[in-house]
Amino acid sequence: MALIPAGTSTPQIIIDVAQLEKNIDKMAQRVASQGLKLRPHAKTHKMLEVASRQLDAGAVGLTVATVGEALSFALQGVAKIFIAYPLWVNQSQAERILELIKRAKLSIGTDSVQAVEQMARMLGEQASKIRLMIEIDSGHHRSGVSPRDALDIAEAARDAGMRVNGVFTFPGHSYNPDGIDCAVNDEHKALAEATRILREAGFAIKRISGGSTPTAALSDNSVLTEVRPGVYVFGDAQQFELGRTGFDEIALTVAATVVSRHEGDEQIPRRIVVDAGSKILGSDRPSWATGYGRIAECPDARISALSEHHATVLWPENLDLPDYGQQLQVIPNHVCQAVNLVDSVLAVHADGTSELWDVAARGLNY
Amino acid sequence: MALIPAGTSTPQIIIDVAQLEKNIDKMAQRVASQGLKLRPHAKTHKMLEVASRQLDAGAVGLTVATVGEALSFALQGVAKIFIAYPLWVNQSQAERILELIKRAKLSIGTDSVQAVEQMARMLGEQASKIRLMIEIDSGHHRSGVSPRDALDIAEAARDAGMRVNGVFTFPGHSYNPDGIDCAVNDEHKALAEATRILREAGFAIKRISGGSTPTAALSDNSVLTEVRPGVYVFGDAQQFELGRTGFDEIALTVAATVVSRHEGDEQIPRRIVVDAGSKILGSDRPSWATGYGRIAECPDARISALSEHHATVLWPENLDLPDYGQQLQVIPNHVCQAVNLVDSVLAVHADGTSELWDVAARGLNY
Repeated sequence: MALIPAGTSTPQIIIDVAQLEKNIDKMAQRVASQGLKLRPHAKTHKMLEVASRQLDAGAVGLTVATVGEALSFALQGVAKIFIAYPLWVNQSQAERILELIKRAKLSIGTDSVQAVEQMARMLGEQASKIRLMIEIDSGHHRSGVSPRDALDIAEAARDAGMRVNGVFTFPGHSYNPDGIDCAVNDEHKALAEATRILREAGFAIKRISGGSTPTAALSDNSVLTEVRPGVYVFGDAQQFELGRTGFDEIALTVAATVVSRHEGDEQIPRRIVVDAGSKILGSDRPSWATGYGRIAECPDARISALSEHHATVLWPENLDLPDYGQQLQVIPNHVCQAVNLVDSVLAVHADGTSELWDVAARGLNY
Repeated sequence: MALIPAGTSTPQIIIDVAQLEKNIDKMAQRVASQGLKLRPHAKTHKMLEVASRQLDAGAVGLTVATVGEALSFALQGVAKIFIAYPLWVNQSQAERILELIKRAKLSIGTDSVQAVEQMARMLGEQASKIRLMIEIDSGHHRSGVSPRDALDIAEAARDAGMRVNGVFTFPGHSYNPDGIDCAVNDEHKALAEATRILREAGFAIKRISGGSTPTAALSDNSVLTEVRPGVYVFGDAQQFELGRTGFDEIALTVAATVVSRHEGDEQIPRRIVVDAGSKILGSDRPSWATGYGRIAECPDARISALSEHHATVLWPENLDLPDYGQQLQVIPNHVCQAVNLVDSVLAVHADGTSELWDVAARGLNY
């Protein structure tokens, strides 16, 4: 983990650039060795500096969640973009999608006949330039249809003069310590069935897209053609507690200062308070997590409570409390939330030099 | 609740200006009728348009959480600011605090001898212009000291040539359906004891500051001189579920579009998905909350899961699912998080006209 540069005001997101590059290379090599393409999800980082390293390492394009994110990256020169979201295209989005089509090869998710028809209405003749990806529900039960319902959508697309390029799913139920193997199976089974049904009906399914950071490393090309992990570039406390990354592989931390310390007594817990709260860490805490994030310097410490500008940290009884003013590195539970809370991050290179990187696509929610 | 203007791209935060003004006036009148001053917490809204309405309605100044927020409001003309946070002042903060002192009457929280001495070191002679407020732990066990430990801090301040103006606490344990009355009692008891100890030692304690939106309405001037509620300006799903606000008093919602709908079956839940996820609602969900926010149009619906750009909404069995493309108003669980995720909000007036308000102090974490 990169050291905090002297004089850093806190809370401040710190990127360890050398570790970031290691994480990018490791995933690129693993995915390539499995015969898959990598189309990483850029909602995690929202930064050109990270995207360009992913593309240089062999990623075939970027995945994003919104039209705004897509346009931000396209305007910065990214040439292939997948909006992996079942868009309901309104007038403002249609105008921006037309801009996007001029600049990038664009694929868009859909999970209903109605959304396909809306897209065709709003985009007119240009709709034929969109590569549609049908979203399949592989067990997360969020958006996406069952494999058998994918055919109606593909036929609606053909009727509207639109192109179906493939199918995708997000196995979100992989975000559970006991759920990863099951989610990998569910993902492969659902995508295989949808592909079979669509191919039997004459659709040329080129892309079969799965993945998430927990499942990507377990996937192969027996069914899938590509994966879309996001969090792997930085890692976070969730991935650590899921066993998908090591403490020493984490490339993003939040530098924070000890502002309050209390030895405690029988009634009152022994604790410190650092100045990184939910307004920089995010407040994600799945039921299986051991706290609201972790402390890099002290694996046995736990963040027991989080306010907007305070993290309350229970400190191990056998260790001295850190001093007032000491700076610590907090590992957020969910790194995508942390990055989306700041306009820039402090990227620290292996030689100790540092620079600010813009979170250019921050807050582009539509 | 203000209607969503036609053509709104979603997700988008919508402010009902008429309801906002009612909420501001109601709290101002209630607090005044209890003989208390109102120093509202501006971390909730971070907007001059809201702050100026609070000041016009009689607030004596603003409360903020960071030096950055304080400077943002001071540069926009706010003259009295309380940073209710136990700052550990570094070089960059010291420089900005010196700027602040030129523009506003400034009070700052502290909960340790060490932080007082650090402030005195960093600010030099100008430290005497700071009005210190000693933070008391009234039962939330975050920052703050016990009443008996306040005296050491006050004496350190006097030795350093600094001024102690008062004591404050945040009764955060009021954020619990069964905890409100208990938290009000704890707050009054702790502040009364700290005030007694400090006054007996010769300190002129002028300000005794409590409050939070749940407790402010239950406080009076038997102990306190002022309260610092924040959330009351907008209300949110937490306050509704705590019984502190009505659905019809909520002044901030997130306009969202139905992007996916599923009738479900025995295995798969009947649900819609709207495009407001944790990147605009925030992901706060206390254990007692019934979901990740509420749907204004359908009080019986529940947000059962939240991803970054999806809210999964379980819809009542006896009601038809909303159509694709329909726009709904989502009430965030914790409104302070939602506002901090956007650069501007859409303020809708009673006559249906609307304008964008800048969230000027967004993301100013230090």
